[in-house]
Amino acid sequence: MRPSNRAPDQLREVEIIRHYTKHAEGSVLVKFGDTHVLCTASVEERVPPFLRGKNQGWVTAEYGMLPRSTGSRMDREAARGKQSGRTQEIQRLIGRSLRAIIDLEKLGERTIHLDCDVIQADGGTRTASITGAYVALHDAISLLLNKQLIAESPLRDAVAAISVGVYQGNPVLDLDYVEDSACDTDMNVVMTGQGGFVEIQGTAEGEPFQREAMNRMLELAESGIHSLLLKQKAVLGL
Amino acid sequence: MRPSNRAPDQLREVEIIRHYTKHAEGSVLVKFGDTHVLCTASVEERVPPFLRGKNQGWVTAEYGMLPRSTGSRMDREAARGKQSGRTQEIQRLIGRSLRAIIDLEKLGERTIHLDCDVIQADGGTRTASITGAYVALHDAISLLLNKQLIAESPLRDAVAAISVGVYQGNPVLDLDYVEDSACDTDMNVVMTGQGGFVEIQGTAEGEPFQREAMNRMLELAESGIHSLLLKQKAVLGL
Amino acid sequence: MRPSNRAPDQLREVEIIRHYTKHAEGSVLVKFGDTHVLCTASVEERVPPFLRGKNQGWVTAEYGMLPRSTGSRMDREAARGKQSGRTQEIQRLIGRSLRAIIDLEKLGERTIHLDCDVIQADGGTRTASITGAYVALHDAISLLLNKQLIAESPLRDAVAAISVGVYQGNPVLDLDYVEDSACDTDMNVVMTGQGGFVEIQGTAEGEPFQREAMNRMLELAESGIHSLLLKQKAVLGL
Amino acid sequence: MRPSNRAPDQLREVEIIRHYTKHAEGSVLVKFGDTHVLCTASVEERVPPFLRGKNQGWVTAEYGMLPRSTGSRMDREAARGKQSGRTQEIQRLIGRSLRAIIDLEKLGERTIHLDCDVIQADGGTRTASITGAYVALHDAISLLLNKQLIAESPLRDAVAAISVGVYQGNPVLDLDYVEDSACDTDMNVVMTGQGGFVEIQGTAEGEPFQREAMNRMLELAESGIHSLLLKQKAVLGL
Amino acid sequence: MRPSNRAPDQLREVEIIRHYTKHAEGSVLVKFGDTHVLCTASVEERVPPFLRGKNQGWVTAEYGMLPRSTGSRMDREAARGKQSGRTQEIQRLIGRSLRAIIDLEKLGERTIHLDCDVIQADGGTRTASITGAYVALHDAISLLLNKQLIAESPLRDAVAAISVGVYQGNPVLDLDYVEDSACDTDMNVVMTGQGGFVEIQGTAEGEPFQREAMNRMLELAESGIHSLLLKQKAVLGL
Amino acid sequence: MRPSNRAPDQLREVEIIRHYTKHAEGSVLVKFGDTHVLCTASVEERVPPFLRGKNQGWVTAEYGMLPRSTGSRMDREAARGKQSGRTQEIQRLIGRSLRAIIDLEKLGERTIHLDCDVIQADGGTRTASITGAYVALHDAISLLLNKQLIAESPLRDAVAAISVGVYQGNPVLDLDYVEDSACDTDMNVVMTGQGGFVEIQGTAEGEPFQREAMNRMLELAESGIHSLLLKQKAVLGL
Repeated sequence: MRPSNRAPDQLREVEIIRHYTKHAEGSVLVKFGDTHVLCTASVEERVPPFLRGKNQGWVTAEYGMLPRSTGSRMDREAARGKQSGRTQEIQRLIGRSLRAIIDLEKLGERTIHLDCDVIQADGGTRTASITGAYVALHDAISLLLNKQLIAESPLRDAVAAISVGVYQGNPVLDLDYVEDSACDTDMNVVMTGQGGFVEIQGTAEGEPFQREAMNRMLELAESGIHSLLLKQKAVLGL
Repeated sequence: MRPSNRAPDQLREVEIIRHYTKHAEGSVLVKFGDTHVLCTASVEERVPPFLRGKNQGWVTAEYGMLPRSTGSRMDREAARGKQSGRTQEIQRLIGRSLRAIIDLEKLGERTIHLDCDVIQADGGTRTASITGAYVALHDAISLLLNKQLIAESPLRDAVAAISVGVYQGNPVLDLDYVEDSACDTDMNVVMTGQGGFVEIQGTAEGEPFQREAMNRMLELAESGIHSLLLKQKAVLGL
Repeated sequence: MRPSNRAPDQLREVEIIRHYTKHAEGSVLVKFGDTHVLCTASVEERVPPFLRGKNQGWVTAEYGMLPRSTGSRMDREAARGKQSGRTQEIQRLIGRSLRAIIDLEKLGERTIHLDCDVIQADGGTRTASITGAYVALHDAISLLLNKQLIAESPLRDAVAAISVGVYQGNPVLDLDYVEDSACDTDMNVVMTGQGGFVEIQGTAEGEPFQREAMNRMLELAESGIHSLLLKQKAVLGL
Repeated sequence: MRPSNRAPDQLREVEIIRHYTKHAEGSVLVKFGDTHVLCTASVEERVPPFLRGKNQGWVTAEYGMLPRSTGSRMDREAARGKQSGRTQEIQRLIGRSLRAIIDLEKLGERTIHLDCDVIQADGGTRTASITGAYVALHDAISLLLNKQLIAESPLRDAVAAISVGVYQGNPVLDLDYVEDSACDTDMNVVMTGQGGFVEIQGTAEGEPFQREAMNRMLELAESGIHSLLLKQKAVLGL
Repeated sequence: MRPSNRAPDQLREVEIIRHYTKHAEGSVLVKFGDTHVLCTASVEERVPPFLRGKNQGWVTAEYGMLPRSTGSRMDREAARGKQSGRTQEIQRLIGRSLRAIIDLEKLGERTIHLDCDVIQADGGTRTASITGAYVALHDAISLLLNKQLIAESPLRDAVAAISVGVYQGNPVLDLDYVEDSACDTDMNVVMTGQGGFVEIQGTAEGEPFQREAMNRMLELAESGIHSLLLKQKAVLGL
Repeated sequence: MRPSNRAPDQLREVEIIRHYTKHAEGSVLVKFGDTHVLCTASVEERVPPFLRGKNQGWVTAEYGMLPRSTGSRMDREAARGKQSGRTQEIQRLIGRSLRAIIDLEKLGERTIHLDCDVIQADGGTRTASITGAYVALHDAISLLLNKQLIAESPLRDAVAAISVGVYQGNPVLDLDYVEDSACDTDMNVVMTGQGGFVEIQGTAEGEPFQREAMNRMLELAESGIHSLLLKQKAVLGL
């Protein structure tokens, strides 16, 4: 039995709210249950130094948690003067995931910054971030198309992400914080709209896991991501 | 004529939402028009080193802006590895303002961290932060009283803040971003419930200002803060 | 009675020594009693990146305290690897104050750096810094005029600063360290030669202050700054 | 055809040299072809603050590359003043992998630091690091047993790691730098001696990958790790 | 011919002014010609962590240059966020030199911080710093003796320092900035009152130097340091 | 008697291995007994900003110690976020020493980075670094000549370095760690192939040293460096 009484293959309630703040080209509040992440997409009309003059754009991500998004207050990274290894790992993951579905040449010489800031955390912040950032990116791209700054959408596919794990011996979908803290295995899976894997990151926090558990987790992830992709489409009116 | 069509002594629409996130002892979303700040109060059962063994508590504040809370994206301070001078100035101001109305000995040997994070900025983020942080602090104190961790409220008074300025030659209350960018003088005023001044910070960005303008700005501030104090009381059910 | 036996409206002995060190374009040792600050003005023939190509110059300030300028030794900021919030606040204040009286376009595409380094501290270091930095800036401008690097002085006015406060219930002028440590209110006032306010920063360290105290403090500040402006003129031979 | 002419399931030549340097409790030079990593295990008789008084030990890892271990010189992280996100990701992975096979309570209140420094890089430095660090850890544990500082080995299992990927459409084992730079998918797999998965990190650098490729890669990894575990045993004389 | 018309074995005018600032236990302004350094000695009643409980004291030094102590303005190290390699080299040299003549056990469990801040630079700042810091240290020790905090002076000897070099082929004493910038060899020599060498640091900036030049430079240094030791004694009234 | 039973004028066994790693233009493992340093020379086809457009090249050095190159593990400088004063001192010394024997104009507008990384430390790491870095530099220069990127060798001479000291009252050559920790005086000497001094850095760690000891140490250094220069020649086949 899961602490939330959910079925093993049941997502938390997912909500995706567009246009959440007014300045960003894309601004999405995504909720996976009590995990709430604000994802903004900001368009900048230049590329980082390593891409100058290469006729292509760039998509990059940054991630942060508000100090009291969590059960006990965390130090503010800006005050400590550096981002933790965990933060860097997550923002690198978000950036790679979104770059997997965009044609950087069609984007033109501009950068889209995806900022994923956790307002409230209850497990699964990185998968919520990827799922929400896609919608924010889509909105920013639509704006560029509307303004005729680009002629054709550089988006090749959709992307979404979910966590799976082994909790008390059973593979389950979309771990919340209570499950995440106690699980044996935690795996984050990122997939495209066409069903290809972009990222798989599985860690045995307790017992090492076997091929059967792995297979079952991948099935759960496929089914969960399928649902998320439908929600993205619905909220985008596609 | 103000760009927002407000009267010179008119506040923007103010909204104060308690219990906005679930983990913090106090969690308030405060809106001054399109300026939205999340203020959380976090109780920690220890004091910083310089206060150990002195039978008193501490109240301190940190301030941050989400990278795309503003019209064009700002660098993330955690990524740059340091807080700007402006950020430090503001968080020091918030901390002093709240300490002005609390009896640190009655608080006992604990720290209350006030985190003010700007979700969306449209001018006046520091005054909104102080105004909202007071409500979050009040909620955290109420919780300590309910849990009988303290016997008596250490709050001696309320506190709120507003900006005033000289815009196109006229003193006005509660500047929004458009006014703030173009004004000659910008002054932030912090006052207690009993009408005393806690902080006054006025800067002539263009023309130096004269005593008459100063006096008129202080009157506007007194009236605006009076309204804010009533809103705080109302939302706290006092 | 003030610890120094001064009258409430009495400045400490003020001394302004020009040409104190030999390399800088302007070099002034300013003494407000036992507070001694070395203010140098350094001309650099370029502007910071955000002003390039805009046909204007820049004036900026940095502030520091020698580790044993104070009663007990402070950590060296260079060794700690960052400037404190207080340091940043002060140097931002000095920079804004001096920029208030200079026409940056007439300065041409060059930067004047004002370095205010406290050799010995006894309260009022930021107001002494502003008062001395103006003289150093004036000397640097005179040198540029003499060398015919600029055709016309970009200085529009003079500027000076003083602290006022409420000590044991009485408004007093130019607080020394003993008063500053024990006062209820501390306010720094910056004014131009023509009597306009450039900056007002008042903080209630103990009791909040009322309008009457505010008014009396501003009168004291006006009178003190009037004396400082005369001393600046005298030492500059104007 | 692989650039190195290896069969798809063929490891590079693997060499594990114990006692490579003289000071460390465990010191191993591990070679996966032209990738050479020095792995040392250092025993420290205390634990980090978060574990004090909890009757358990700690195992942690740090990773670095010599500036010219690579084809073009990289900046020295010590000179730049911070470790890259990639470095932190790798050292966190190494630490988790080794902690997966050790009983921290049996280790007692001491820390074992695993330092993995890349002398020469040709792809696969993180998997070589994990494989070599296990041998260094084993040597350090043996020393503690010999000195009777611990009564019983805290090692519960062995651990080794290998990369797999999809290169020109074909799943292959143990990518070298040329393959790694051009592959579609890169996956690092960490497994225990008993065949359980500890970590799986797969990234589609080009095309997303499908379940069949995933299954084939996991088979290759299992077979490669089996060989590495035998080599570890042989060099340890087990 | 030297640019300053000095004889090869002639020091610049040396002045040592005690009690230069009022807070420090020792405060000395030392002048070697146009090089002016403020040396303060600050007593702290504790030792750094690595010496706790070892019944001995510590003497340490820090060095800094005011930004416009030099011909063109240097960046402020506190603003850049780190001390340069040169700064660290110099402050390590000053610290070692002073520790060479003090009995740290007799000092008791306290630290003396020597801060050497260059007000105006014209070559030889490190040797002026050492020579002045000794006098400041002596004053601080005298104060400890007067207050009966220590029973017996921990000073075993005096210490002073001077630079020598090869300028246009000729060995010369006490290089000023013009000579220092153009010399072939620059050597700093630190000696005790009893004529022993504490530090010798010689660098060939142009041509390597031979043993004869070395011998002549050491003779010049011995003679110069002899004069400095007499000046220290005179100013200390010994 | 020396702990190693060496005669006072006896070097440790010296070994210089060229082409130690495969990527660098010069790669040398140098051993002075149990001190092993990897010295690589990396050619970069540009110069630092302060030399741009000046028709000359640059040679610079960086130094590091692997965390467990020493008897007890040292913190990793990359993890602490800064290089120690000792590290900076050493890398500045190495850089100056190599620049002393190269004609930077003949090098052309390129930089050679010398990275000296200590694999195992037993005293004398800086002198081994200089001695090995010369061979790596020579190899890199030969490559530039072979590729006809430069027409003529910019090397004007060879350079090598050794430590000398006073151990138990006796001057000795090439101190190992046991001697270094207990010696009264430690001196590092850098000389060219033609017998000129490039650097002399002597420190009295215990008793100050006298001229006779100084003279004897210099003789020992000259003889030791003579041997090292022969070994460099032999390994380079000159």
